[in-house]
Order: sequence, then C-alpha cells, then structure tokens
Amino acid sequence: MTETLETLVQALRVLPSVGEKSAWRMALHLLDREDESLEKLAEALLAARQKVHRCPVCFTWCEGELCSVCSSMSRDRSQLCVVERPRDMWALESRGQYRGLYHVLGGVLSPINGVTVDSLRLRELVYRIGEGEVTEVILGLSGTSEAETTAHYIAKILEPFNVVISRFSRGLSAGMELEYADRSTLDRALAERRVMQYGEQS
Amino acid sequence: MTETLETLVQALRVLPSVGEKSAWRMALHLLDREDESLEKLAEALLAARQKVHRCPVCFTWCEGELCSVCSSMSRDRSQLCVVERPRDMWALESRGQYRGLYHVLGGVLSPINGVTVDSLRLRELVYRIGEGEVTEVILGLSGTSEAETTAHYIAKILEPFNVVISRFSRGLSAGMELEYADRSTLDRALAERRVMQYGEQS
Repeated sequence: MTETLETLVQALRVLPSVGEKSAWRMALHLLDREDESLEKLAEALLAARQKVHRCPVCFTWCEGELCSVCSSMSRDRSQLCVVERPRDMWALESRGQYRGLYHVLGGVLSPINGVTVDSLRLRELVYRIGEGEVTEVILGLSGTSEAETTAHYIAKILEPFNVVISRFSRGLSAGMELEYADRSTLDRALAERRVMQYGEQS
Repeated sequence: MTETLETLVQALRVLPSVGEKSAWRMALHLLDREDESLEKLAEALLAARQKVHRCPVCFTWCEGELCSVCSSMSRDRSQLCVVERPRDMWALESRGQYRGLYHVLGGVLSPINGVTVDSLRLRELVYRIGEGEVTEVILGLSGTSEAETTAHYIAKILEPFNVVISRFSRGLSAGMELEYADRSTLDRALAERRVMQYGEQS
C-alpha cells in the first residue's frame, strides 16, 4: 500500500456510491491497464472543468457562450419547460418533440436534505417570466412528493404573471401492467383518466 | 449534452462495473461539486501513474526502488507467500503475523478468461525459487476452483526444487454458523478437521 495510491483511493471516493472497497478496485484496475485509459480519464476530467460551464440563461451544462437550445433561432420562446437537472433536459431533447426553451432548477425543494428555496434557481425563473416573452410554463419535474411540493410552490410564485402553468401528465408508464403499478400511480391513472369517446347524446 | 462531457463519460466507463448511467452520474456529480475534488482526482490519477510501479522482485505496487517488504532487512527470506494480487499481500501485511516475503502472481489460471500460464508471473516465481534462498512456498490463493488448479500447477512446476509447499487452511470462516456454510466449505471443514485432544490410550 503506497501513499500515492492511498491519495488516489481517497480522491475516487468522492464519486457517488463509491466506497473504500470500490475505490481500491478502481485504482488498481486503472493501474493494471496498460493502455492510456488512466491518462485519458485525468485529461477528460480537467477538460470538463475547463470547458464545461452553466448556460447563463437556462443553467444547463454547455461549452459555448449559451447552450445550443438558448442560442437556437428556431425554438419557440413562448414555452418554458422547468426541469430539475441537465440530464432531464437532454432526455427531452433526445425525443425531439419539444420546441420551446428550458429552465434547469437544480433539484427540488427538500428541506431535510438542505435544499431550500434559495438553493434552487427560482429567482432566476421569476426573472425570466418577468421579461414577458413566455406564455406557458411547463413543469417537467419528477414524480416524487418533493417535486409535487416544488411544482405547487412554483405555481404560487408565478401567480402574479399572465402565464399558463402546466405539468407533465401522470399515469401508467408505457408497457406497464396494471397489477404491478404502485397504489398512487393507479389512483392517479384513474382520477386523471382521459375520455376517448363520448357516447351519442340521445 | 456537450462533447467534452461525452468524452469524460466515456473515460469514466473504463472503471470497473461503471456503465453509461453511473458514468453520467459521476461526471455530473464532479462538475456539480464546488470544491476542488475534480482537480484532486485528476492530479491523483496522474501522480499514481507517475510514481507507482511494480516492485521488480515481488511485483506488488510500490513507490521506491523495491517495495517495503522486499527492501526490509528484518524479513524471513526463507519463506515466500504466493498471492494473486497486491491487495491480498496488503491484507496479510495488515495482520502483521507473516514475516516472510511475497510473490504477486497477477491472478489465477483461467483459460476461459484468457489467463494462461504465460500471463501469470510463474517464470519469475521459478527463477526466485531457483536462487535457493527460499525453503517454504506458502500458497495464499483464494478458495475458487481456478485458484485450486493454479495451486496444483505451481506445486508441479516447483517439484524439482527442494522446497516445502504449503497452502492456507480451509474451513469455516471466523464467526460463521454451520447452517449457513456452503456444501464444499462444510465438506472441507470435516475432511480437514484438526485433532484438539487425544483420548488417553488405555
């Protein structure tokens, strides 16, 4: 066991869900490999820190001055989709259906985990809505109860503005079987059912 | 999604049991952290590659010319413990009981995984034994059937030398309850039982 290796193991432990044992396995695996993968990892880390920064408008990660969505001339600037994390935005972008803009909140309200109103980009959201171009705010938050609370909080602070606020629909996932759906999903699926056809009015 | 981030994610995927999803989580986690942990990780990686190398005698990882065991004047040079990996050696060293030398094999024979006689440090082992100082070779390999095969192979190639070959004892782990022991452990524990006391010979 050498001092330099110990330092590497401690440095690897900052990675999410990596404990002492996995960190050792990672360190020795990298040393063992005879290709350049260790060097490439070190370079890629430094390059990311140097080149990747937050888009000053929507707060996703980007490399240019603005992100590709904010700088695009072909996006619908009247729609703003609020998401928790850059990955949520990328997931939506990969579908290619949404043509509006984004706002990356940075998480959801969770006082237990120390995420309060001030730690999210809520002030920035209000500022963007205040500029008047947006007419619909789409809340693309996750299905947790904390996200629910956050959605209601956002709806409240945007009350003074003349914007429609919508949220993603809830219900059964594609391909999900009824018997495996959890209770609240099932409750929602029933309560928020969509009419497919109206019977003939006689 | 930026190109630099993609490169980082691919670089992280060389880590053992890290898939696309974990790699993304790791990359974004590191970017999110506002301390120096990303830079420290990059530095620690490069420092490890620069300073840590294989001990030319026993092939463990070390920083000096020889590892601390090989360069020690107080170790028993007549005993040589053969282990699979540097971590096995460190585990034994942490107990402080063994006072002999080590030989890091680099794994066990496993033709299915491409580990053949030539990929282990067997030639180097034979060379060390040939020098004549070692009188006991202790096989400190794991309990797998592949390790078993490797142990027999080593015993065979060391036949021409005047050395005792021993292996670690097998049986119930400390604290293990009988009912939870797997069958082969139980078989071994019975077959290799130790006499605690001989009855009075009448």
